[in-house]
Amino acid sequence: MDKYFMKRALDIALGGKGRVAPNPLVGALIVKNKKIISQGYHEKHGGKHAEINAIDSCSVPLNGATLYCNLEPCSSLYLGKKNPPCCDRIISSGISRVVIGQIDPNPMVSGKGVARLKEAGIDVIVGVLEKEALEINMGYNSLMEKGRPYVHLKWAQTLDGKIAANSGKSKWISSQTCRANTHYLRSKYDGILVGRTTYELDNPVLNTRYGYTPSPRPIVIDPLLKLSPKLNVFKRNPVIFCSQDTLEVDRKDRKGEYILLPGRKFQLNQILTSLKELGINSLFVEGGRELLTQFIRDEIWDRITIYIAPKILGDGMSPIGDLNIETPSKAINFKHIDMDIIENHTVFNGYREELVLCLPE
Amino acid sequence: MDKYFMKRALDIALGGKGRVAPNPLVGALIVKNKKIISQGYHEKHGGKHAEINAIDSCSVPLNGATLYCNLEPCSSLYLGKKNPPCCDRIISSGISRVVIGQIDPNPMVSGKGVARLKEAGIDVIVGVLEKEALEINMGYNSLMEKGRPYVHLKWAQTLDGKIAANSGKSKWISSQTCRANTHYLRSKYDGILVGRTTYELDNPVLNTRYGYTPSPRPIVIDPLLKLSPKLNVFKRNPVIFCSQDTLEVDRKDRKGEYILLPGRKFQLNQILTSLKELGINSLFVEGGRELLTQFIRDEIWDRITIYIAPKILGDGMSPIGDLNIETPSKAINFKHIDMDIIENHTVFNGYREELVLCLPE
Repeated sequence: MDKYFMKRALDIALGGKGRVAPNPLVGALIVKNKKIISQGYHEKHGGKHAEINAIDSCSVPLNGATLYCNLEPCSSLYLGKKNPPCCDRIISSGISRVVIGQIDPNPMVSGKGVARLKEAGIDVIVGVLEKEALEINMGYNSLMEKGRPYVHLKWAQTLDGKIAANSGKSKWISSQTCRANTHYLRSKYDGILVGRTTYELDNPVLNTRYGYTPSPRPIVIDPLLKLSPKLNVFKRNPVIFCSQDTLEVDRKDRKGEYILLPGRKFQLNQILTSLKELGINSLFVEGGRELLTQFIRDEIWDRITIYIAPKILGDGMSPIGDLNIETPSKAINFKHIDMDIIENHTVFNGYREELVLCLPE
Repeated sequence: MDKYFMKRALDIALGGKGRVAPNPLVGALIVKNKKIISQGYHEKHGGKHAEINAIDSCSVPLNGATLYCNLEPCSSLYLGKKNPPCCDRIISSGISRVVIGQIDPNPMVSGKGVARLKEAGIDVIVGVLEKEALEINMGYNSLMEKGRPYVHLKWAQTLDGKIAANSGKSKWISSQTCRANTHYLRSKYDGILVGRTTYELDNPVLNTRYGYTPSPRPIVIDPLLKLSPKLNVFKRNPVIFCSQDTLEVDRKDRKGEYILLPGRKFQLNQILTSLKELGINSLFVEGGRELLTQFIRDEIWDRITIYIAPKILGDGMSPIGDLNIETPSKAINFKHIDMDIIENHTVFNGYREELVLCLPE
């Protein structure tokens, strides 16, 4: 029952998508005698919190009711915060039980909301559909915990680990179902990035198709602005990272937002810091080999998805280049894995960290 | 019910293992009123067929009984055959129903047994546990259909398709459960083969452990007899392929059976023809890269098993070398696939052909 209502709260939370950043998406649902009596979500940055919206819009007494919210309610006023603490309103409303998806990773409030509610005698449950809760706010969580956007690497390969034939041809390694699944994943991200070579070889649009929306914003890293202005990506107003040395280059033929960085070889940290400033809190990276290798080597990633197609290519391009790993025991491992088999393809999902934020008991 | 009794017949058939080659393993079970009333198997090369053994050892009348046998009963006398046709005995016995695992791939008899039984008014069912039936006689089936031993290629790799680090280290890519599974597979084969480099690098024993028996016979391809006599494999009386040019080389320090071939670079066909003559009807090939590539390039394989471990190595050794494949659409595909996920490892099994031998309706 708790999972059912939490799923509803998560769906409601999505209403704020694209309007609350850098705040998290939050949905709240109030249930009394197994009936939903109110709901609300955080609608826009600076607006009221989800819990307050749900309480405000309720016309029946809340005593004995249960509040479901995907994120831990806030407990205190702090610098920059625009709303009075939700915990106070919850306590005074008479709500007797609070079910929470994930605790707030913001160190200013993390765990304090739960403690405050418990002190007031409210029954608090944490971690219901936590994985789903963490996922819809992966960008916010990453910013709070690591100070950088959430990074998801993805590639499709043959059984023998090849992402393209020696000729450079990569269409198609995986099945249409896997490619559709990729578009679903794309729709969850603020930004999408591929390397220069991939732009040159494949000329991708990088939007979402197969009915998934919205499309993530494309990102181009092109220090010397050498990519052809005719590429599809330039029709989609990308973020373009280029060198300050190219100040004199004519930019009228490439539609996009230019970010100038010093030097001619950019560090991923520079890129991610700029993306954070642009409100791009989550990033989907689809290759190619050089870029994927750089993210893994720099240990800047949170999740890796690999589609493994049931075919063998022999010689060709490997997905990942040199990582300076000398023995299998030092290979890169995952803290959490989920796997699936779709049309004889393995769909591998590996996470750098445990998918748990629960408070210790 | 038919599957249950066929499973019994298959288990009984295994009694002849190692004593009937080049004949197939056959078990027969006679069931009347849902009770097993007799059973028999082909016990040794030149001995009575399974069906005859089962009929002979039965003391109750067989009218109305069902005979289960994993292989189609033979229907005619032909050159070299040592026994009278089983179909005649089945028909005269009064058995009214025959359930068959697989039809006989031997072109001299294939389908004729089924036709003969049907003509006599017997109810015949073909294809019960056919996959299992094909598997226990994979060597016999391969000899009949392709004139060569059955070939099963196997390797373990990382997610990104590496069978060893750049240093050559490969211990361990996959989990202990996967390695135990490999020993189970080994126990199904007459012979086991790895390349010279693998003997040098890993010094494998190539027996079966983890409680599986019997061990396959190891095979060494060493044209110039340069492998160290101290390698573990030479304690196991291997088959050793070497060049006729090495006739003068002292062989006392290497225990084994020597097969001399012309030239110094051997074709796989030469090797397989010799193995067939030695009664090695099925072959398990565990690498390395060069040997696996040769089998795939020469299109000499029937099944490929890949253990994909949930880790990433970056640079390292790919399992398969150049196959001259220029585009993913020309990659090697499989006619039949079964896959499993064990401890976050993908266990991939791809078959070159459909696992079906059923007669067309």
